[in-house]
Amino acid sequence: MKSEPHLQAVCGKSVGECLRIIEQFHGWRAPGLLLGMYMVDWALELIGEGVEADAIVETRHCLPDAVQLFTPCTVGNGWLKIIDWDCFAVTLYDRRELSGFRVHLDLGKTEALCPDLFNWFMRRVPKRSLPLEVLEKAILGVGRSVLTAESVVMTDAYKRIKKSGTAVCPSCGESFGADRPRLCPSCRGEGYCSPLEPQSASGAA
Amino acid sequence: MKSEPHLQAVCGKSVGECLRIIEQFHGWRAPGLLLGMYMVDWALELIGEGVEADAIVETRHCLPDAVQLFTPCTVGNGWLKIIDWDCFAVTLYDRRELSGFRVHLDLGKTEALCPDLFNWFMRRVPKRSLPLEVLEKAILGVGRSVLTAESVVMTDAYKRIKKSGTAVCPSCGESFGADRPRLCPSCRGEGYCSPLEPQSASGAA
Repeated sequence: MKSEPHLQAVCGKSVGECLRIIEQFHGWRAPGLLLGMYMVDWALELIGEGVEADAIVETRHCLPDAVQLFTPCTVGNGWLKIIDWDCFAVTLYDRRELSGFRVHLDLGKTEALCPDLFNWFMRRVPKRSLPLEVLEKAILGVGRSVLTAESVVMTDAYKRIKKSGTAVCPSCGESFGADRPRLCPSCRGEGYCSPLEPQSASGAA
Repeated sequence: MKSEPHLQAVCGKSVGECLRIIEQFHGWRAPGLLLGMYMVDWALELIGEGVEADAIVETRHCLPDAVQLFTPCTVGNGWLKIIDWDCFAVTLYDRRELSGFRVHLDLGKTEALCPDLFNWFMRRVPKRSLPLEVLEKAILGVGRSVLTAESVVMTDAYKRIKKSGTAVCPSCGESFGADRPRLCPSCRGEGYCSPLEPQSASGAA
């Protein structure tokens, strides 16, 4: 007998608590992030407790937030890497053994078990015809049964990216990565904004 | 009269609460993230309430987590972009007006006001000679007075990155970004891991 999905534990928490955490951090309960919750949950279970795992996600959409919320890996601490392939997959790996588990959305299982989710993911229907509530109920109903997990050995991209040395730009005086040319990227004309005027630190500590 | 730094509000919370949030998400109270907390705090104050701001950080180290924790912008929701320059700067901008505020660590102010912080940031002293407690106390003491903020107009990188169309790899059957060649990156030999064996979804919902 199946238990109600909202009563099951996912990533060590109740589904309801996970949804609250997702909404608070990500801004809304994005379907991709709900799927990501189940993907991370399965990868965590497979790799087991007590393993210091690093993570790689293969898309920049939604999935990075599932890893950041439900594992110790974040972009800023360097334990999560994002590969921009738009593949809906996550890998957690033991950074000493260089082995781990990759979990991805299985299109075959999804099409067979959850046509609404398949049509949403493949963009076969207009967004307005699949309300978020319908998708959310569908995802919570199928859980990890639309996913496939496999054990993997790491062959690349597993090293932590160390901070480069710190250089000071002779033009603007700001710091930048020392493995670059003499001027900082902004002073080389690669900047993304133009300054107007400095602000006073009136509220300084 | 200065108030005690730990009693001041930062990013709408007490410093103590911010430190707890940082430790819980990032794993430890990294000095770069404490600086980031003050940078985001200032940028938020300058841009004002009621503005839907997107964010750009100019390093992948520490600073992305400050933005993700203290603004609605995350990597996964697409409101935060990371430019990998190893510049210690963050910009919050109004995505309609394309104007905003860039805050960076000012090396001149840092050297003058907080030599320990300057020496740590420029790696002029071995890590063991500057314990984290010393750095933390130093950063909480100087707050935003070691930063410089300027108003800016956006000239590039301000557009949201939309998800590409979804293709299905004819070799492995997985989805990937449709703006790429026919095979998915893994099947083209660009993968980062080799599969060993599939796992059964014993705990499936």
